[in-house]
Amino acid sequence: MIKVSLNGYGTIGKRVANAIFLQPDMKLIGIAKTSPNYEALVAQKMGYRIFVPENSIKSFEENGIKIAGTIEDMIKESDIIVDATPNGVGAKYKEIYQKFSKKAIFQGGEKANVAEVSFSALCNYDEAVNKNYIRVVSCNTTGLLRTICTINSISKVEKVRATVVRRAADPKEVKKGPINSLVADPVSVPSHHAKDVNTVLKDLDIVSMAVIAPTTLMHIHLLNITLKSQVSKEDIINKFLETPRIVLVSRKSDITSTAEIIEVARDLGRLRNDIPEVVVFEDSIYVKDHEVFLMYGVHQESIVVPENIDAIRASMNLASREESIKMTNATLGIRSGYLI
Amino acid sequence: MIKVSLNGYGTIGKRVANAIFLQPDMKLIGIAKTSPNYEALVAQKMGYRIFVPENSIKSFEENGIKIAGTIEDMIKESDIIVDATPNGVGAKYKEIYQKFSKKAIFQGGEKANVAEVSFSALCNYDEAVNKNYIRVVSCNTTGLLRTICTINSISKVEKVRATVVRRAADPKEVKKGPINSLVADPVSVPSHHAKDVNTVLKDLDIVSMAVIAPTTLMHIHLLNITLKSQVSKEDIINKFLETPRIVLVSRKSDITSTAEIIEVARDLGRLRNDIPEVVVFEDSIYVKDHEVFLMYGVHQESIVVPENIDAIRASMNLASREESIKMTNATLGIRSGYLI
Repeated sequence: MIKVSLNGYGTIGKRVANAIFLQPDMKLIGIAKTSPNYEALVAQKMGYRIFVPENSIKSFEENGIKIAGTIEDMIKESDIIVDATPNGVGAKYKEIYQKFSKKAIFQGGEKANVAEVSFSALCNYDEAVNKNYIRVVSCNTTGLLRTICTINSISKVEKVRATVVRRAADPKEVKKGPINSLVADPVSVPSHHAKDVNTVLKDLDIVSMAVIAPTTLMHIHLLNITLKSQVSKEDIINKFLETPRIVLVSRKSDITSTAEIIEVARDLGRLRNDIPEVVVFEDSIYVKDHEVFLMYGVHQESIVVPENIDAIRASMNLASREESIKMTNATLGIRSGYLI
Repeated sequence: MIKVSLNGYGTIGKRVANAIFLQPDMKLIGIAKTSPNYEALVAQKMGYRIFVPENSIKSFEENGIKIAGTIEDMIKESDIIVDATPNGVGAKYKEIYQKFSKKAIFQGGEKANVAEVSFSALCNYDEAVNKNYIRVVSCNTTGLLRTICTINSISKVEKVRATVVRRAADPKEVKKGPINSLVADPVSVPSHHAKDVNTVLKDLDIVSMAVIAPTTLMHIHLLNITLKSQVSKEDIINKFLETPRIVLVSRKSDITSTAEIIEVARDLGRLRNDIPEVVVFEDSIYVKDHEVFLMYGVHQESIVVPENIDAIRASMNLASREESIKMTNATLGIRSGYLI
């Protein structure tokens, strides 16, 4: 049993903690948190051991939260740490992980050079095997990579022109905007998403542009992909249907929005209405000569969760790509085929 | 086992269907639905028998949905029907329920005279016993009644001045607004909420005003209640803590928004992040002489679900008020005390 701990218990951290708890080959040592808010109270209710910075022990204890030790204590107990601290903080913690000779998985908010390899399970699992420091790319990049690598397995992808419509904030966030504007973000083209895809697919010709829209549910990507040879819409649909972590929204479901996608996740009883799969609108797939157009949703809160689990297995050399993806999907209920 | 069917399978209907399925003294005959969209596909996946209008059979079958019969077939098989059809449609269906001598539970979107009694489990369960037609009041009225009847049990409530800040649409709805405006709705004072409270508490002096805000998560009520005798903040907190279907949000949880309340429901793994409890901000309770002020959240999608279950038991005389509330709460995981 690999001993894993979670440094950071926000949107990503709490989901990865749940996921580690469900893995048969991993043991969750505990979670590290800096403020004693409701998420800490939930973590306590879940029975997780809670580790905090030295100077936060008092505030946690005053809120009735039992502390298992400091964050350093947690790191020392672990074989590998999943760092889900805020953007840029992971790079600072890396020094501590190195000091105790511990492996670590970083998130996409860190610069690519924090790790030896940027990671997407469907694209480059094997490159990450035995690496000490792996960076799981961001939610948007994960969506792009899953889709591009899948289509690339039918016909070589020569060019990607991507539009990313980003959600403004996560559902729990009440201090972020915009609430009534579309923001070109970043206003400079190409957006960082293309560059981030290139950390994994180094030679791909990809340009991305991004806007932020006032919504919290999901991102939507609108892709224009040029292939080496023409493929049919049916080829693409069939490939998606057999690919893990991609689901299709059918015409008969009458779903055309992220609101309805999330509603299905709620109706199906998914934990936190999470949808770690890329959700492709089947009707949006359009082929014109060597070009493919499509639209899909990316659930920013959960899409990287299975990638973190696979990255742990790659780093510790616990399983092959296929074995790890299969085990992660089975334990987390991640599907292929149609959403409903 | 009482045979119950669900006419209407939208926001309320699908939740009441789940809830009936979980009751030891009820059998879900099936659900009636008019359009073969994703909610019908989910119902099929849940294994529910699906009944449709005669002229919709073809469109359901074309979408691969197996039909158990017409809505009339469903009504004939049932002892009692929960009518969760759109506002005003229930009154039309009443004729069919009467034709087959079936009891029915209506929702707050119907006019009060559709039923023999308007219903709130904490306030007037006993009045509904053995009645053929019961109307569960709306989400906002349910929140008001639960709160007022609870405070009334400490000291007589002489006057209520209520402000209702209403959510604009349910999370799944993509064709309703506003998205960037506050709407005085209704612009005439008092709003219908006060009148609806008076269908249950007939002599209460209550005036309500309402605005719609661009959010989908919950309503918030801001109350000013005048009591016959002064009570302390602690009296109120202690009463709320022991009252079923009311939970408190503590100061230590650092929760001040509906976004964070829903996030807790997600983190706790609640189905569809539902919170059928009234959620009172503990810090908002303020006492000035004989007046009490407080703020609480009302989850419009789920607050009436336990009320529908209790209304069935009252109509069929299956259990006392206390027994029914206890059974409903236990089967649906509805709590008292602190939210977290």
